[in-house]
Amino acid sequence: MRIELSFTPHQADEAALRDKTVVAIDVLRASTTIITALHHGAREIIPVTTVESAVKLSAKLASDIVLLGGERGGKMIQGFSLGNSPAEYVPEKVKGKSIVFSSTNGSQVMADSRYAREMVVCGFVNMTQVVNFLRERSRDFILACAGTNGAFSLEDSVCAGMVIQHLLKDDSLGVSLSDGALAAQTLYRSHGKNILKLLQSTEHGRHLIEIGFEDDLKLCASVDSIPVLPQLDGNVIRLKRDAEKKDLSPAIATS
Amino acid sequence: MRIELSFTPHQADEAALRDKTVVAIDVLRASTTIITALHHGAREIIPVTTVESAVKLSAKLASDIVLLGGERGGKMIQGFSLGNSPAEYVPEKVKGKSIVFSSTNGSQVMADSRYAREMVVCGFVNMTQVVNFLRERSRDFILACAGTNGAFSLEDSVCAGMVIQHLLKDDSLGVSLSDGALAAQTLYRSHGKNILKLLQSTEHGRHLIEIGFEDDLKLCASVDSIPVLPQLDGNVIRLKRDAEKKDLSPAIATS
Repeated sequence: MRIELSFTPHQADEAALRDKTVVAIDVLRASTTIITALHHGAREIIPVTTVESAVKLSAKLASDIVLLGGERGGKMIQGFSLGNSPAEYVPEKVKGKSIVFSSTNGSQVMADSRYAREMVVCGFVNMTQVVNFLRERSRDFILACAGTNGAFSLEDSVCAGMVIQHLLKDDSLGVSLSDGALAAQTLYRSHGKNILKLLQSTEHGRHLIEIGFEDDLKLCASVDSIPVLPQLDGNVIRLKRDAEKKDLSPAIATS
Repeated sequence: MRIELSFTPHQADEAALRDKTVVAIDVLRASTTIITALHHGAREIIPVTTVESAVKLSAKLASDIVLLGGERGGKMIQGFSLGNSPAEYVPEKVKGKSIVFSSTNGSQVMADSRYAREMVVCGFVNMTQVVNFLRERSRDFILACAGTNGAFSLEDSVCAGMVIQHLLKDDSLGVSLSDGALAAQTLYRSHGKNILKLLQSTEHGRHLIEIGFEDDLKLCASVDSIPVLPQLDGNVIRLKRDAEKKDLSPAIATS
């Protein structure tokens, strides 16, 4: 099992992710928010890269089932119903909804995965789900970190390193690491002992504290607190269970 | 002193490097080759990004003073006089010559620095020269790693981390690190104990061994073996001493 890694979306664009198994990581906060929203009953997340696309797309969909979510500069976008704080995505707001979602960093990686073989969303909160999925698949994959505004972010890399560290425990997988994956493993071993403390110390974490989202860091740091696996299904992200049900249904219908 | 870092040229393009102090790092092998060439008496290095530009530019210059150097896939380019092995750049070949130089990774970073405030070329071989320069300047800078074919490379990051580790010893500099710079420092501390062993283990190092350049790794791993500092001077790279002489001469002439 060969593990590759990109630290920023520039490093692995749409073409580079084509036909691959992609693990999309944006710890602060898109991954955590999407995982939370789907766990709380959102029907699906539709990742788009620009605010304009988000508005246009939502206008085409029935307004009673669609919400606009996302951020720019960490703050909710004017005219949107939801920001990028996992705490906002409560069942009362999101249950049964399709959420058109545009964040600065995470949405880019998720949209770039449109030609991937498969893509799952990873944060600290669903670590074991991601690791189990990769162990079951037992095939090469790429960890695609969102980074922050085009730059490297330590929290995404440490999260990627935690995935790698778990898989390395299983000798039967025959894991081999690219330079980037080896670096992420090293970063996890050095900076991954206290995830909350890590998030409070990184550039993006400090920015979120400054603009009033310190409580989000606790949510994003809670390893294995939300045991679900969001997965790309066509152009939308759904829970793995739902996505697989849908995949299976035509086969069942024709049998 | 704020230290930023980019792991690949995609992360910090021409616009991002504008007006900055840039430390360009391509350990295997452009940095080491350029440092060697200038130490062995080459007049200047002219970094260009494409083979076409290299050929066109050299055709415009007097053929007796110009050489074409560089590589694609690690190997010498057809029609060029020199590849990208530091061992080729001996005094008998390069003394007094202008070398139009195009390598896959390093040339990109160096060409992207054209609007930088200043740019120096860094490898393990001239570590102390680079650190002393940055300590004297005592201003913010960016470590611009070349990476390998657009991807992260461990050897460039560890080299950047060594620069950071040296500067952190000096409390008076008030060093603060971006996430990327902190990661590089961590990588240096974990992987920087034996540089030759490191180069033999990285993706690009193993590729060079495969295509017959194992001896180059020893040259590239020799910390402080070549005490010179190549610096961008207009569009060419010269030794710092020569570059400064040239800067000074008009002032002297008019005084």
